[in-house]
Amino acid sequence: MLKKVLIANRGEIAVRIIRACHEIGIQTVAVYSEADREALHTQLADEAICIGGARATDSYLNMTSILSAAVVTGAQAIHPGFGFLSENSIFATMCEEMNITFIGPKAETIDLMGNKSNARSAMIEANVPVIPGSRGYVISAEEAEKEANKLGYPVILKAASGGGGKGMRRVTEASQLHTLFSQAKAESQAAFGDDRMYIEKIISPARHIEVQILGDEFGNVIHLGERDCSLQRNHQKVLEESPSTFISDKTRQAMGETAVRAAKFVDYRNAGTIEFLVDAEENFYFMEMNTRIQVEHPVTEMATGIDIVKEQLQIASNLPLSIKQKDVEITGHTIECRINAENPANGFRPSSGTVDYLFLPSGGNGLRVESAMYCGYEIPPFYDSMIAKVITKGQDRQEAIAKMKRALHELVIEGVETNIIFQKAILNDDNFVYGNYDTDYLQTSFLPKWQP
Amino acid sequence: MLKKVLIANRGEIAVRIIRACHEIGIQTVAVYSEADREALHTQLADEAICIGGARATDSYLNMTSILSAAVVTGAQAIHPGFGFLSENSIFATMCEEMNITFIGPKAETIDLMGNKSNARSAMIEANVPVIPGSRGYVISAEEAEKEANKLGYPVILKAASGGGGKGMRRVTEASQLHTLFSQAKAESQAAFGDDRMYIEKIISPARHIEVQILGDEFGNVIHLGERDCSLQRNHQKVLEESPSTFISDKTRQAMGETAVRAAKFVDYRNAGTIEFLVDAEENFYFMEMNTRIQVEHPVTEMATGIDIVKEQLQIASNLPLSIKQKDVEITGHTIECRINAENPANGFRPSSGTVDYLFLPSGGNGLRVESAMYCGYEIPPFYDSMIAKVITKGQDRQEAIAKMKRALHELVIEGVETNIIFQKAILNDDNFVYGNYDTDYLQTSFLPKWQP
Repeated sequence: MLKKVLIANRGEIAVRIIRACHEIGIQTVAVYSEADREALHTQLADEAICIGGARATDSYLNMTSILSAAVVTGAQAIHPGFGFLSENSIFATMCEEMNITFIGPKAETIDLMGNKSNARSAMIEANVPVIPGSRGYVISAEEAEKEANKLGYPVILKAASGGGGKGMRRVTEASQLHTLFSQAKAESQAAFGDDRMYIEKIISPARHIEVQILGDEFGNVIHLGERDCSLQRNHQKVLEESPSTFISDKTRQAMGETAVRAAKFVDYRNAGTIEFLVDAEENFYFMEMNTRIQVEHPVTEMATGIDIVKEQLQIASNLPLSIKQKDVEITGHTIECRINAENPANGFRPSSGTVDYLFLPSGGNGLRVESAMYCGYEIPPFYDSMIAKVITKGQDRQEAIAKMKRALHELVIEGVETNIIFQKAILNDDNFVYGNYDTDYLQTSFLPKWQP
Repeated sequence: MLKKVLIANRGEIAVRIIRACHEIGIQTVAVYSEADREALHTQLADEAICIGGARATDSYLNMTSILSAAVVTGAQAIHPGFGFLSENSIFATMCEEMNITFIGPKAETIDLMGNKSNARSAMIEANVPVIPGSRGYVISAEEAEKEANKLGYPVILKAASGGGGKGMRRVTEASQLHTLFSQAKAESQAAFGDDRMYIEKIISPARHIEVQILGDEFGNVIHLGERDCSLQRNHQKVLEESPSTFISDKTRQAMGETAVRAAKFVDYRNAGTIEFLVDAEENFYFMEMNTRIQVEHPVTEMATGIDIVKEQLQIASNLPLSIKQKDVEITGHTIECRINAENPANGFRPSSGTVDYLFLPSGGNGLRVESAMYCGYEIPPFYDSMIAKVITKGQDRQEAIAKMKRALHELVIEGVETNIIFQKAILNDDNFVYGNYDTDYLQTSFLPKWQP
């Protein structure tokens, strides 16, 4: 087993990883920015090293600083958490070159799955259903129109090098195509210096359902069931649950098997997630693979009893997975609510400041709170606004919801604005209670009618 | 299902019950003493009524005050928690007479099991093994000597009306018997106005292993496995675990079946615990029955996934148990550490004062903290010193211990003395780690060598 691990992250995920390390006797090294001197991850780790200024580019994205910290402290491995450098293949390569274990897949796997077009091709080869779309790029508006007619409207135009919504256009009818194609192409050229475009069918209404994967160095790949993450605002997940209320057991099994096949095809190692879109007829389509631990991993941990971070550490130690597929059992129903420092009454604008008073609910069976806050903690304005995750598990969905309502009723975070009121409103929403939602639901149905 | 419940208790157990009620939609009424105006249970309940002065006799033991609060608020039922009025048959009778459901067994069952001699007779009748001893009372020292010779030394002399160690004498050889018998008799007469004595064999070395029972109004009685509570200081449990490291599966099964038989024999209703002493050969003997929820119930909840407080509320609502014996499954290993406000360096003297800073560990799978503290909470000097319970569950005992060490390492309670250092020392003790302990271990082996 690894003896010393550096955690190249901050906030609740850094704390989560430190805790898992401590429970299996691994020494921990925290890295922190100047804004995170008093942060919980800085306090809880066995050693802590300042790696630069408050801005992420100066610290948590500063590869040289982080690698130096690993060398200086003798850390054998780096856990990147999520965000920051977790899906950066250059960083993974640098780790490999310096003989430091990057806790994640091989750099080439990150690269392959990080390029949407290459990932799509690989999945087609692996016989994994992908969203119908053009094979390769569409050169002209005429070609795009031909493809769109084959696919059926609505379709989406996407930039090959796209990201953050740039170079993307939703096309609902043929008459819009020529204009939108030119716009997207120009925007893509301006943003990425690359005007290659491709086209995909829009699956709508759709569920976002993802499958958690674990793979070790010995070719063992298992899945830990699914998470339904369809409740999103601005493409950000808000509330996740497992099992999904939407899919049948047959679909569930097929998705699990497909995810394992996809991961095996790319020789996947460590924890990862295959994200699918699922249409109204329960057809599912590969969307993308996240080659790292995810924010919502505790949902699966509560559902299965398996500690995913410990498995990551075990895999990175060249040990086989501690469970087999047949031993994975999903019990009860689990829900996670993401608590963000943001103001729902002001367009969900991020909030920062000192947490003057904090009460995190605890107690009772089936409640877990992941957070890096404490009484008096100062939330810096430089990073992601997520400040806590509340996870509840019940014998059934109704109990999980009741537990979550109870927990959010008790939760007190004074000094910053939070989205607790938004989460409470969702929990009380009839469509949510009946499991009747899709990826557009919050944005197009719920929010327009909701008064914070 | 009940609609409104009054909780006749304080501290973490009151909070625990309020949370369970809220999760199933039951309205809650807290009662509080003048010292508990700012207490968490007072804050979390839907209604809160002051029932008297700080001293328990003026408030939490004040039956009239509590019953009046129930009437005024329209509470249909009273949950007594543990301690205070939870095993008071007069209070249970008063509730019955006022048509308020006492959440616990019938008053006559409390009475029967509360009287050690009657409980013993009932258990003999139910074919439950009891600690070998005199049938009925021993009138004279001569008769005591005759019994002692039959039982074999060491034996213990006990007052029929005894309690709190009064009227009790341990006799290791025949020559001491006459003197100690006279002393115990006189002490018993002075303390209880009753000098009737009986005599029992001392089981030593012994384990204290108890079985959790649930019984409903329809005659269904199930057990939820055992808890090993052998680690005690001054007859107070310190750390509990499940399963016991000591007994074989055969003994485990026999104890479970015996506990169910015992409970059925006395027509037991609601949650209760049968406490056994287990000797070196795994013979087990009925010690007593606790006719209420116990401090260490979360151990069983984590081990089985069953919410015991919710079952209590369900039973009290005249609904059948929600689980059958065959569905009860114990997984992994669970440990509970009791955190007390007391000073181990000063003879474990109780401590009180303001909690200036509090950090309760959370996060990770399999950790639960039950507490009524918050940042700035003032621990009053009037009540029990237990201020928190930390419960961890691992795939195996080693993981549960590692998790507990991690949790106690993070736990910060500033402003009062606590026994955290004592719990940490136990977790690091080789005999504990190897499961090698009995009821005398802490008192006679561990503590004499330990330096706080």
